[in-house]
Amino acid sequence: MKVFIAGIDGYLGWPLAQYLTARGHRVAGNDMFYRRQWVAEIGSHSAIPVYDLPERQRAFRDRYGCDLIFRQGDLLDYQFLKSFLEDFQPDAIVHLAEMPSAPYSMIDQAHAAFTQHNNVIGSLNLLWAMKEVCPEAHLVKLGTMGEYGTPNIDIPEGFFEIEFRGRKDRLPFPRQAGSFYHWSKVHDSNNTMFACKIWGLKATDIMQGVVFGTSIDEMGGNPRLYSRLDFDQCFGTAVNRFCCQAVIGHPLTLYGAGGQTRGFLPLRDSMQCLTITIENPPTAGEYRVFNQFEECYSVEELAYMVQAVGNEAGLNVEVHHYDNPRKELDKHYFNPDRQHLINLGYQPTHDVRAEMRLMLRDLIPYRDRIAEKQDILIPDIRWDGTRRRSQMIDEPAPSVRH
Amino acid sequence: MKVFIAGIDGYLGWPLAQYLTARGHRVAGNDMFYRRQWVAEIGSHSAIPVYDLPERQRAFRDRYGCDLIFRQGDLLDYQFLKSFLEDFQPDAIVHLAEMPSAPYSMIDQAHAAFTQHNNVIGSLNLLWAMKEVCPEAHLVKLGTMGEYGTPNIDIPEGFFEIEFRGRKDRLPFPRQAGSFYHWSKVHDSNNTMFACKIWGLKATDIMQGVVFGTSIDEMGGNPRLYSRLDFDQCFGTAVNRFCCQAVIGHPLTLYGAGGQTRGFLPLRDSMQCLTITIENPPTAGEYRVFNQFEECYSVEELAYMVQAVGNEAGLNVEVHHYDNPRKELDKHYFNPDRQHLINLGYQPTHDVRAEMRLMLRDLIPYRDRIAEKQDILIPDIRWDGTRRRSQMIDEPAPSVRH
Repeated sequence: MKVFIAGIDGYLGWPLAQYLTARGHRVAGNDMFYRRQWVAEIGSHSAIPVYDLPERQRAFRDRYGCDLIFRQGDLLDYQFLKSFLEDFQPDAIVHLAEMPSAPYSMIDQAHAAFTQHNNVIGSLNLLWAMKEVCPEAHLVKLGTMGEYGTPNIDIPEGFFEIEFRGRKDRLPFPRQAGSFYHWSKVHDSNNTMFACKIWGLKATDIMQGVVFGTSIDEMGGNPRLYSRLDFDQCFGTAVNRFCCQAVIGHPLTLYGAGGQTRGFLPLRDSMQCLTITIENPPTAGEYRVFNQFEECYSVEELAYMVQAVGNEAGLNVEVHHYDNPRKELDKHYFNPDRQHLINLGYQPTHDVRAEMRLMLRDLIPYRDRIAEKQDILIPDIRWDGTRRRSQMIDEPAPSVRH
Repeated sequence: MKVFIAGIDGYLGWPLAQYLTARGHRVAGNDMFYRRQWVAEIGSHSAIPVYDLPERQRAFRDRYGCDLIFRQGDLLDYQFLKSFLEDFQPDAIVHLAEMPSAPYSMIDQAHAAFTQHNNVIGSLNLLWAMKEVCPEAHLVKLGTMGEYGTPNIDIPEGFFEIEFRGRKDRLPFPRQAGSFYHWSKVHDSNNTMFACKIWGLKATDIMQGVVFGTSIDEMGGNPRLYSRLDFDQCFGTAVNRFCCQAVIGHPLTLYGAGGQTRGFLPLRDSMQCLTITIENPPTAGEYRVFNQFEECYSVEELAYMVQAVGNEAGLNVEVHHYDNPRKELDKHYFNPDRQHLINLGYQPTHDVRAEMRLMLRDLIPYRDRIAEKQDILIPDIRWDGTRRRSQMIDEPAPSVRH
């Protein structure tokens, strides 16, 4: 299959290009290298060095024996997008070209407006370009489990049958996102659902959990092929951040009570699920939603797992609570479905500790790179629009809990 | 009260400025005059001549004895917006500054992207500006009943209590909008709900039905004070378009079977409801949704009412069905609530025919202006992204049905 990856230089795009190529698919993609700029803007860098794209292309050719088709350009540039799709004629398009950080979207008006403009108009352009150039292609759009928020009822996959005042209908499941970034993804989901309805496009909207991991087996342990790994308050998600903190002896930073429960999945599971999705397209006009995660965990639970694995590896890992810079419940009901991908053959990694061990192995060589930026490990971007560094709100936790 | 009207030169903004001023409120507002440009772009003009803003300001002063505070500028220009709000310090802000046409948003990629950018980022900027400048002010945001689409269950006002798999929650009512314009309004509703939650802003989100009417009593029959009245396929909504067609002897244009049922309300009811809303603000942090309409009608029902009223007035009015350029159900269940405004004292106009008589009276002097543009009365903007003029799909209907 010919697969176009929008955002091919990113945390998921780069390993996905490899995972798909290793399975015989042909891959092309675009990027604007914004992620590299955003991380620099907030004063950080990837824990694992990120090579420039020509070097990545050379490493890719060495490993997989074929070229990675790449053009620098933006989904906001409609003519660029159209002509790339016209030339490549993809069977599937994986949309990973959105600004993916909740805190970054909450910094101020300019960052909120940038995020929603980039994500909503970029995705809208992609829908129009597909309609005009390749209406038979399958759009695999990356949403987020964060679109749902934390309702007090089970979370189905996108739609639910309900009864209200004695009448029944199947309706989109209500979204209650928690940042302007998360809302931009909801807006995109809505536009995508509508485009499938009116134009007969086919799309799978992936409500993905929080991904963690440094590498996948296909990379063969070659750091030039590794993905980026961010640990800052904006682009460093929970487990990735915890692992980086662990290797430099910084306390793991839980926000508030740490009871926030989310779906999580290792990078290898994300690759597996996206590939299963690509290889099993929906029918014309179908808009389907997959909840994509290995299992639900509270962030506290994951922090103590990283602590346990780190201590086994001879690190001295502490876990601390900090006042929560976000506005979110830190104790809540959370029970999402994730049957669709299982039905298509997804086999979840159940040994999350083994994944964490690999992460620490990959990260320890870059201890100094992480330590160099350790002053950005405590968040200061607050949901009330101010900047104030979070304070530790507990006594040091016992150093081993699991 | 000091009321800021974003979009004060438009169909609703201009009469609202007068209605509020007549009741002793102090009004200021901005506009970019885009509506005038959009209507010209698609080859039409307002049936009732629209004076330029300095002339409108003079007429306003003559009638109400006070100045209309106005600045030309855009919600997309954040510094302009902030400084205007800083200077005026409003108690309430009525947001009428969105691109309001479904067909205009469906023309092509550029129009869809313009619509969502203008509406989503303009509204997002307004939320940030309120947070920074006047967090105590009350935002009255104009959504649309079209956000809901036509679900097969009753439509509550924004939220509903449901039971799903044995658990209960109060959730936002799912939206199923029917154009990129309508979706932009959903996106705005979502961003507004979120801003109230995290920043304690107060907002009323008005899910307004289709407004019709040429003037309100406050204008004292002075055409310099009348609002614009569009009749083209983009900005001419059902009853307004029918009345213009009736006065020039053009068949009233029903799309498809004409069974599309919507909430409708006369312009005077819209003014009444918005004023009631402004004068009864919610509490800090409250995001409330009002469904705002006089009554639900099918478009066919309204067409035959215009026909009856027109024929009484000596016009010879025919009603015809044309193939529907939109993708929508033309027969469906539709039962929305509208209790909140009634509870606050809204008294619906029940004599819709009397309103139509006034409209024909106001429009007959401008017969020639309408006739001049009669070649744009048949729609050609189709939801599949093409342009093709709709064909008449019925035999001439009997000239009197009611």
